[in-house]
Amino acid sequence: MDGGAIPRGGGREAIAAAAREVFHERGYHGASIRDIAGRAGLSLSALYYWHPSKQDLLAALIEEHTLEYFRRCDEALADIPLTDSTARLAALVRATVVYRVEQQVESNISAREWRNLEAGQGERLEGLRTKASTIWADIVDEGVRLGTFRCPHPADARRAAQAACNAIAQWYRPDGTLSAEDLVERYTLIVMRIVDAEPA
Amino acid sequence: MDGGAIPRGGGREAIAAAAREVFHERGYHGASIRDIAGRAGLSLSALYYWHPSKQDLLAALIEEHTLEYFRRCDEALADIPLTDSTARLAALVRATVVYRVEQQVESNISAREWRNLEAGQGERLEGLRTKASTIWADIVDEGVRLGTFRCPHPADARRAAQAACNAIAQWYRPDGTLSAEDLVERYTLIVMRIVDAEPA
Repeated sequence: MDGGAIPRGGGREAIAAAAREVFHERGYHGASIRDIAGRAGLSLSALYYWHPSKQDLLAALIEEHTLEYFRRCDEALADIPLTDSTARLAALVRATVVYRVEQQVESNISAREWRNLEAGQGERLEGLRTKASTIWADIVDEGVRLGTFRCPHPADARRAAQAACNAIAQWYRPDGTLSAEDLVERYTLIVMRIVDAEPA
Repeated sequence: MDGGAIPRGGGREAIAAAAREVFHERGYHGASIRDIAGRAGLSLSALYYWHPSKQDLLAALIEEHTLEYFRRCDEALADIPLTDSTARLAALVRATVVYRVEQQVESNISAREWRNLEAGQGERLEGLRTKASTIWADIVDEGVRLGTFRCPHPADARRAAQAACNAIAQWYRPDGTLSAEDLVERYTLIVMRIVDAEPA
């Protein structure tokens, strides 16, 4: 025990940063709450003040990552008319590709550890996961309705586009030659071909 | 101990089937070698006769899955001339989509647990993983060289196509309305658009 002092201020952020590192290096099952507290420079009791369990910590991280992705998508789409499907899809690809490159660790933790969420937490967060697909589906479906996208199977086009962009977090090397901007350009082209967008 | 009898015949297959079930349900870290032996109807000592560790068992499973995928790709491509890039890519998409649908559990174990392979096993199997990408890259690159595929960034087209087909194992519901044949048709179309194949 650390004398009962209640941690303030940076505690929550320090724990999130430490948990990201430890989950990334060892995976959820290989990570110990003790390692995470140590990495955050906190006592175990201080960590338990914020998160009653490793499961709670994982759920909080995944929720935080997902909400940050949504925030970026909302920001990217805010000023684009609902009728401009091509511009909306391009903005969504940009937000997604940049997030996968800049938040590579966050992306991989969310993708890999989602299945380790237990019943209560999993159900609560399942709605967020569905929402991520819905952001994509709404744009693709509206583009098809308007005749801007001509793909015959919008649900599969949406899945393929999302899978292609999400996979960037798995293979991207920050020390390589490709910038986020290179990838935005390339994946915009690929996604526009997947949905069969009319030529600009 | 089971009296020292050396297991014969179906032991190896029974272990593989049990390990697939247990890894699928609980993940590598959540699975115990005792559960796997029990599920296979074998004693612990019989299991250890075949696999000295859970790590060895995971590596054997992933190797078996990957070699089976290669066998199917080889069979699909065997009779198609190297110069017919469109037919070769279509055959590879078919082999991959059918494998992801029919071997959904195998696909997901390999995708999720690859990162839990430890140093020695991981390096040995990394060559197999690279080979899977090479099968795709060889066909896409040759198609670009021949002018059959017009995608400006073949490596990204290859990654996007592979990611789209591989993702099927994550979302496919065997009790849903889509057959493997439906998906072969849809993903062939999507992949041909990704590589910008000349119209047939």
